[in-house]
Amino acid sequence: MKLVPLLEPIRLQMERVEYLIHEALAKVEEPIRSRLRYSLDGGKRLRPALVILSGRMFAPATEPFYSLAAAVDMLHTATLIHDDLLDEAPLRRGRETLHTIWPAGATVLAGDYLLGQAISLIAELEHPRIFKVFGETLCTLCAGEIRRLVAPGGYSRQNYYRSIEAKTASLFAASTEMAGILAGAGDMQIAALRRFGRELGMAFQIVDDVLDFIGDEAQLGKPAGSDFRQGLVTLPVLYCLERVEDNGPVHAVLSGQWDDEHVQAAIEAIRSSGAIEASLAEARAYARRSQGALATLPDNAWRQLLCSLADYVVERIH
Amino acid sequence: MKLVPLLEPIRLQMERVEYLIHEALAKVEEPIRSRLRYSLDGGKRLRPALVILSGRMFAPATEPFYSLAAAVDMLHTATLIHDDLLDEAPLRRGRETLHTIWPAGATVLAGDYLLGQAISLIAELEHPRIFKVFGETLCTLCAGEIRRLVAPGGYSRQNYYRSIEAKTASLFAASTEMAGILAGAGDMQIAALRRFGRELGMAFQIVDDVLDFIGDEAQLGKPAGSDFRQGLVTLPVLYCLERVEDNGPVHAVLSGQWDDEHVQAAIEAIRSSGAIEASLAEARAYARRSQGALATLPDNAWRQLLCSLADYVVERIH
Repeated sequence: MKLVPLLEPIRLQMERVEYLIHEALAKVEEPIRSRLRYSLDGGKRLRPALVILSGRMFAPATEPFYSLAAAVDMLHTATLIHDDLLDEAPLRRGRETLHTIWPAGATVLAGDYLLGQAISLIAELEHPRIFKVFGETLCTLCAGEIRRLVAPGGYSRQNYYRSIEAKTASLFAASTEMAGILAGAGDMQIAALRRFGRELGMAFQIVDDVLDFIGDEAQLGKPAGSDFRQGLVTLPVLYCLERVEDNGPVHAVLSGQWDDEHVQAAIEAIRSSGAIEASLAEARAYARRSQGALATLPDNAWRQLLCSLADYVVERIH
Repeated sequence: MKLVPLLEPIRLQMERVEYLIHEALAKVEEPIRSRLRYSLDGGKRLRPALVILSGRMFAPATEPFYSLAAAVDMLHTATLIHDDLLDEAPLRRGRETLHTIWPAGATVLAGDYLLGQAISLIAELEHPRIFKVFGETLCTLCAGEIRRLVAPGGYSRQNYYRSIEAKTASLFAASTEMAGILAGAGDMQIAALRRFGRELGMAFQIVDDVLDFIGDEAQLGKPAGSDFRQGLVTLPVLYCLERVEDNGPVHAVLSGQWDDEHVQAAIEAIRSSGAIEASLAEARAYARRSQGALATLPDNAWRQLLCSLADYVVERIH
């Protein structure tokens, strides 16, 4: 299942979003412009697609939806740039991350600039309720990352859900919610859209975390096991820790005391423990709940597309 | 001339702003909260005072003005945290800068969090025009810093003015402009407020740059000559380069090839060249222009205080 054919009905709209994203960079000096373009390119634009589709369910496609979609993607990329610096991640979307090429300060500014542009796009919508959601989402994203950094808590599924809710589901939920507000949907419908986005975001992040163990580098844009090597405690790791008694290699990797042999043994242990299947089952449950949230919304081709998008999010492992 | 007695008529309002700034930190985990408090404390709160005074000229003091004032100060501190990381500055407001204690990533997140809180406060005002000014100001601040980093241009006063306009005057101008919008002032009055803030910001930054050469560590919160050692080409440096033929030590410092002897000789050369006096004359001219912009605004005690504030900004060297 591929994303591109699925989004064919909104191809022209997505091109307009792409144009706005690149236009926002036109004002900034080289070489920052090229570097930012480099960071922005290669994304799947899943969040902008959610904005466009959620909006279309209720209203014709108009310029403000493209601005909102572009703003959401720019906020997303800004947080990726800052997070990669935080994690000292070497690769993203198959390319070197910004901070491996640039000094930390310049990387920070590049993220800040994108954020400023995103705020300016949002401001043009002249919609206080959308500003509010945008501001709260930025706070949630930051607070989640701060918590991960300074108070990660124990290895528990509860901590994991809390963490992916802040880092991923919050922006998915904000994307669909803001689109609903902009489209003039009713409060119940906006709440359903938010729930759809939130559950979809949870499914998406779980699948992302599974892919770290079963994906290949071409698909991931970085070597398999990259997040794991950084000590990220994701759902497959947690399921493995719950299911397997002797988890020596997994603990070694999580504690940062590892060599390649440990990593291979740990990945093997996780794969053979049933943790992958259990995680995917959970992702599917979230995706189903997201589809359930759509049930109260207008039954049209756009809703059908959002429903297919939820299938895509969990089926993209194949 | 001291700032505190000058602001006595708005002391209670400023305390409310202080409360809001600290309240915004209550939601974030330790040790980030203490660190952010540490970064926020010790500021002069000049920008919040501009918001309160500009607002009072037109309207009674109400909660939204405090939120706006707190947001402006939080945006200011967020940019300071990120800028200090960029400049690798060791001290700010007499304290160690955040990035000397924390890893770069955590420092970035702390700034992002403040920015998120500032946006949330601004969003609560439900005023699209204010949101727009806020977004544009963040873009201007970032674009200015980016330019300084990647395309600083030659040593010219024109480049210097352009740079301080982006890094300082833009936020002063935004503070007074947003206060005017919030107070329901007319468009001409808002433009005059913006002009007042802009000219005052230019004066303020020039004086700040002069203080780097003539201030003492207690006043500056960092050793004298700190900015100069970092190679910052400020107005006193430019005047010295224009006025003195043999500028060996100054060029040595600017090129980064210096020892303490070079720095002392360069500072001495700048002080004895008349560059300090010429710079201060220019700061005074900006301050006078800022006072001129007030002339069209309601003639009341608050306008008088803003006028005195402009005097303070240039007289604070004594």
